[in-house]
Amino acid sequence: MPAEPLGMADATLGFDLGGTKLLAALLDGAGRIVAQQRIATPDGAPARVIDAMATLAAELAARAPAVVARAAGIGFPGLVDVARGVARSSVILREWREVPLAAQLSQRLRLPVALDNDVHQAARAERAVRGAAERDFLFLTVGTGIGGALVLRGELWPGAEGLAGEIGHLSVDRDGPECACGRRGCIGVVASGGAIERQLGLAKGGLAAAAAAGDPRVTAALAEAAAALGGALASAINLLALPLVVVGGGVVELDGRFVAAVEAALRRDAMAEIGAATRVERARCGYEAGALGAALHARGVARSASE
Amino acid sequence: MPAEPLGMADATLGFDLGGTKLLAALLDGAGRIVAQQRIATPDGAPARVIDAMATLAAELAARAPAVVARAAGIGFPGLVDVARGVARSSVILREWREVPLAAQLSQRLRLPVALDNDVHQAARAERAVRGAAERDFLFLTVGTGIGGALVLRGELWPGAEGLAGEIGHLSVDRDGPECACGRRGCIGVVASGGAIERQLGLAKGGLAAAAAAGDPRVTAALAEAAAALGGALASAINLLALPLVVVGGGVVELDGRFVAAVEAALRRDAMAEIGAATRVERARCGYEAGALGAALHARGVARSASE
Repeated sequence: MPAEPLGMADATLGFDLGGTKLLAALLDGAGRIVAQQRIATPDGAPARVIDAMATLAAELAARAPAVVARAAGIGFPGLVDVARGVARSSVILREWREVPLAAQLSQRLRLPVALDNDVHQAARAERAVRGAAERDFLFLTVGTGIGGALVLRGELWPGAEGLAGEIGHLSVDRDGPECACGRRGCIGVVASGGAIERQLGLAKGGLAAAAAAGDPRVTAALAEAAAALGGALASAINLLALPLVVVGGGVVELDGRFVAAVEAALRRDAMAEIGAATRVERARCGYEAGALGAALHARGVARSASE
Repeated sequence: MPAEPLGMADATLGFDLGGTKLLAALLDGAGRIVAQQRIATPDGAPARVIDAMATLAAELAARAPAVVARAAGIGFPGLVDVARGVARSSVILREWREVPLAAQLSQRLRLPVALDNDVHQAARAERAVRGAAERDFLFLTVGTGIGGALVLRGELWPGAEGLAGEIGHLSVDRDGPECACGRRGCIGVVASGGAIERQLGLAKGGLAAAAAAGDPRVTAALAEAAAALGGALASAINLLALPLVVVGGGVVELDGRFVAAVEAALRRDAMAEIGAATRVERARCGYEAGALGAALHARGVARSASE
């Protein structure tokens, strides 16, 4: 006879590893966050981050002793080999090269661990929050850079080797600024927060402060970024004919008109019939999206481990 | 006890309606074309085309009396409302506006009829010919214009209202030539056969003759088109991370190096990891792809009608 309440077998941990913050969340069997904690990302070697994850796991377990995690998930800010659980590289965490993160954390926590990139994990959270009515959407984060993920027929679309979603490298201007990928005019160097900071000569991370100070150049640059982004989305939507685009990330928070401006540009630039069938909405999950999605990703791992 | 051989219940008819030709094919239960016939597309009102389809069906039935079609499929060169079986509009067949084609042909043939656009149907044929190993690919036709279709997890991806696949309206150059969709620099007006004819001042449909005559400007224009197309595909593949792009259509036939040039440009422009995981191949189905795919599409209709 089960000593635990039904569904508790699915309690999981989720970690969202960012350039500045590391967030951990403990999810109960019903998919609710019962405890979470955020710390500054430890500098230096990956081993220090894995130590910090283990410490966070112990602290969350102490705070919610009735909820016993059976698996953990991680969102990593870079390229991931999902099948092998390896963090391949990151422009944000430059020390990370081919780190077998899932295996190393699994050893520490004595739990199965699922690894994917942070935007894929956040898209899983958005999918869960939006429920069964939204089975097909493009998920976009607009922050320092631009990341993306596709949810198709209710599931995250991994693509070959789990690499799908790099809409930040959709080029909209063959004569545009150079991108780290080697091409010109990628939307990630045209319409991201980092791109606006470079255009306006702001310090790295200075966009939020400039927006809060009411700098009129920021308002104009955000409007231009939204228009460029809508144009890139029009190209993607002409191909995919998705009924929904969800936009999250720090830049969206800076101007309440941003998402509507993206939608207007998408509808102007897409084929009329396709644009009319698509809407753009702000992400419903907030800063905890990555950790929540990672914990949801871990459920699949917990289930296959118990079979 | 069944009087017919096993599988015969799935014999179907397929029609590929083009601007100049109308092709009909009769498929047996094993998915083989047992008879086909091609005529010039009748001018004028849609009713004349529907008459011609009924005549073709009778002729194929007379040529292969042992194979009794249980349903028919149609590929239409334009926008289609798949759910209602309506041909909405076409830049190739301008008389066609909101024609309930599936219902009208169904009444004539006394069979269930499935309707989709011609590129979706051709992608279904390519999927069938390539077999189970190729479950995920982007299908592309480069002819007078550029059309596309996605096969994801083994199935055609319809998109909202069946409109997916319009990769011809992926813009690669914000200062490029104007497209009928209202935008600039769509790949369909940059790298299609029609675009090359306009660039070189050739007559409509004159590209094939110029290529056959060895016009060196054609060779250069085809190389440029392949490079632009590879760049557009790089943007699409960065988002979708598909392992395969299949390219067919008349332009591909003009220069044996075209597909390899598209692949080279895709790999140069895509993110390194994603480009390395993608290959570009020439379509295996030839001019009968649309009719074959339409007949395959009809199988699903035949099955649900017999349940």
